[in-house]
Amino acid sequence: MPQKIVVVGAGPVGSLAALYAAVRGHDVEIYELRSDLRNSEHSSNISQSINLALSERGINSLRKTGLPDLADAVLAETFPMHGRMIHVRKHGQYVRQAQAYDAHGRNLLAMDRTGLNKTLLDHLNSMPNVTFFFHRKLVSVDFRKKLAWFENRTKTDPAKSDDIEVSFDLMIGADGAHSAVRYHLMKFVPMSYQQEYIDKLWCQFHVPPSDKGDFRIPPNYLHIWPQDDAMFIALPNLDKSFTSTLFLTRSGFEELVASGKVVEYFDEKFPGVVPELITEDELRKQFNEHDHFPLISIKCSPYHFGSTGVIVGDSAHAMVPFYGQGMNAGLEDVRVLFEILDKYPGDQAKALSEYSEQRTPDAQTINDLALGNYREMASDVKKPLYLLRKWIEEKLYIYVPSAGWATQYSRVTFSNMRYSEVQAAAQRQAKILNGIVGVTTLSLIGSAALWLGRTGGLQQAKQNILRSICLLAQQAQKVTKG
Amino acid sequence: MPQKIVVVGAGPVGSLAALYAAVRGHDVEIYELRSDLRNSEHSSNISQSINLALSERGINSLRKTGLPDLADAVLAETFPMHGRMIHVRKHGQYVRQAQAYDAHGRNLLAMDRTGLNKTLLDHLNSMPNVTFFFHRKLVSVDFRKKLAWFENRTKTDPAKSDDIEVSFDLMIGADGAHSAVRYHLMKFVPMSYQQEYIDKLWCQFHVPPSDKGDFRIPPNYLHIWPQDDAMFIALPNLDKSFTSTLFLTRSGFEELVASGKVVEYFDEKFPGVVPELITEDELRKQFNEHDHFPLISIKCSPYHFGSTGVIVGDSAHAMVPFYGQGMNAGLEDVRVLFEILDKYPGDQAKALSEYSEQRTPDAQTINDLALGNYREMASDVKKPLYLLRKWIEEKLYIYVPSAGWATQYSRVTFSNMRYSEVQAAAQRQAKILNGIVGVTTLSLIGSAALWLGRTGGLQQAKQNILRSICLLAQQAQKVTKG
Repeated sequence: MPQKIVVVGAGPVGSLAALYAAVRGHDVEIYELRSDLRNSEHSSNISQSINLALSERGINSLRKTGLPDLADAVLAETFPMHGRMIHVRKHGQYVRQAQAYDAHGRNLLAMDRTGLNKTLLDHLNSMPNVTFFFHRKLVSVDFRKKLAWFENRTKTDPAKSDDIEVSFDLMIGADGAHSAVRYHLMKFVPMSYQQEYIDKLWCQFHVPPSDKGDFRIPPNYLHIWPQDDAMFIALPNLDKSFTSTLFLTRSGFEELVASGKVVEYFDEKFPGVVPELITEDELRKQFNEHDHFPLISIKCSPYHFGSTGVIVGDSAHAMVPFYGQGMNAGLEDVRVLFEILDKYPGDQAKALSEYSEQRTPDAQTINDLALGNYREMASDVKKPLYLLRKWIEEKLYIYVPSAGWATQYSRVTFSNMRYSEVQAAAQRQAKILNGIVGVTTLSLIGSAALWLGRTGGLQQAKQNILRSICLLAQQAQKVTKG
Repeated sequence: MPQKIVVVGAGPVGSLAALYAAVRGHDVEIYELRSDLRNSEHSSNISQSINLALSERGINSLRKTGLPDLADAVLAETFPMHGRMIHVRKHGQYVRQAQAYDAHGRNLLAMDRTGLNKTLLDHLNSMPNVTFFFHRKLVSVDFRKKLAWFENRTKTDPAKSDDIEVSFDLMIGADGAHSAVRYHLMKFVPMSYQQEYIDKLWCQFHVPPSDKGDFRIPPNYLHIWPQDDAMFIALPNLDKSFTSTLFLTRSGFEELVASGKVVEYFDEKFPGVVPELITEDELRKQFNEHDHFPLISIKCSPYHFGSTGVIVGDSAHAMVPFYGQGMNAGLEDVRVLFEILDKYPGDQAKALSEYSEQRTPDAQTINDLALGNYREMASDVKKPLYLLRKWIEEKLYIYVPSAGWATQYSRVTFSNMRYSEVQAAAQRQAKILNGIVGVTTLSLIGSAALWLGRTGGLQQAKQNILRSICLLAQQAQKVTKG
């Protein structure tokens, strides 16, 4: 039976939720605090958003709408990244080192958040059962009476109240980390809630195309300048520019603001950025003019109240950006939510309850993984043991696919396996891998000794390693299947 | 220099904050969502609040206002509780057992939350620089522009907006666990925040005076029926009634609601309640008619933004009621806040920052102690080892006051020592006490053997114990001073 579904928030996650609802024939209304971002006045804010890395979960959720051209329209505006490119100084030399994301050649897709959002809004516009309300601020909700109140921020006469009362059967809150829907939901359900600001701020930089109109550095990579406490990254855009982000501690930002020595800092920490990517003047200008944003990590439980309210995306589980999964997880929320709603057509309360129960551990897992992945991006990627481990994991993946071996990264990024199951599988594998890395290190040492003795030793070393891998892969096969 | 201070929330903590501000000559405005509780229409809600146990921190904070008669006016409406009275069945027999709160005879003071609130509001009313606004809902705050917007809920024409814009130099949020001030503060300062609902609900019962117009059970006690997963308590009122509270798990409440067997449950678990305190019919009626409330525990940090916003009381650190400190800690917040403000007359930002820094660890400590104290109230009070430990601690306190020995409970309840320091001292003492309890248990066993052999052994046993205590007290003296 068609319902009145009110979606709060017209970002990518809210828009996708509205699409899923509209496709099912419901009467859909979307309320958004800001203006329609397809109007040009909005564009000045666009540069303030981290670029997205769209991956399997996001794409799959777009495909599952049932709208045949949606995913393709989105994919047409993405730019593939085959792997990371690490920028460091080694023995005083500036070195770039590529690390593939996936042994099977699958890619991350860089894309502009606004572009994704516009495509979704355009698709919604073509549906007769969807109505948009921009400049509407959620003031209050009664999830029992199924009524919400919005303030109309376009009102001309400030002395005249034209708050709107809106009825609904289901309200879907997709209004971001500082969600008003969640705030009101908390008044109806005893919600455990935790938010934490990590000690990293971020600031965005725009890296234009070169004078010849080309990319300034190899385009098919997510570029990383890992410096432990700090990190600079660059993601390619379709117009051959890059969007870059500096991550740094609060005190680090404060020192740079106080000293004004941002160029000197970049020279020391991030080789090949100034002036190759950005001029000294531009760096100073953008550092001063662009906001320095904090990073929040949010966990809560449950996500719903009765049969009338549910939250998705950042409003349920805002996460730090270091696993590139925030948006993908939000889009996946929508797919999971509607699949469960479809499962219980007569019992929406049961569906929402199952959604909370299933999705909470998954979201909390990716939230934790994202927190942990800063270390991987900003430190581990530089370390020999990490590279060895990665190499072994990829070899295992290629040589023993029947064992169901896959890296945690590839399961998170290139599969739709539940996050909580990804983590459980990764923990099983880690035990095995630690054994393999130990044996491999030993055989490396042995081979090194051999190599000192005669030529052809390097070849021998690699063969030794592969032999260890094959032996242990058999063990792995048993365990991962168990 | 007088400032415009806006206090949000006219509960006891907000009222006290307004008093502290008014005494300092500031221009004070208090905004409260609800009606003035001194108007009778409000009284129906009064029974829904847990009775307070006022103790040293609360009283001290009342005295420090500088209003000579305030603390005395409040104290005149309290009822002293010398200790706990535990109600259990032992070997099928109903037993009551008194446990003094303090070896020096200090008391907890039972009082009605509304009575305290009224006294504070009456004192505020007599000050010319204080203005009240009831039925005002905080809608938005800009802590940079120092502007707040309130909705006037008494408006007669719903089509006409009469939101009020209010300017301020300092906003003090005392608007409870679901604080709107905190919600808006979070938009200006990166706040770590955690809320958790524990698996206990509570339901209140009114126990009237007996037919002869007297207390139904000994009045000078906080009565406890400890049943581990459940607990029933009763606090005396001035009118010779008791206010009782049932604490029970959510599933426990659901089972009682479903089965309707609340009388049977009380008969089994809480001896001497039905029909001595409350009739079967009244128990059923009140269980069904009174709300079953959840219990929330909140921690956050920091408590302020710049020089313009700060939160106190439950809005900063709502805690579970099992240490009887929620209100006392809230009143103490006000004393600490204004003492620090007085310290930096020219630098309010520095004062608020020091307040956050000093008060956060203290509030988090008492929050944790309160969570832990459920176990003490509902389980430990029944156990012989707990009673032995308590007896030894009290003897130490009496015989070796020079050692600065005091129980954690007495320091929390009868001193103004910072909560974080109380905990640190308690941890030092626990090490010593564990040694003493060990030796004492051994000497008890020895004395028991002796007692079996000849008369006068019981006397001997006690002497043995006191001897151990004196020996170990010397050790304690060294350590606690160190």
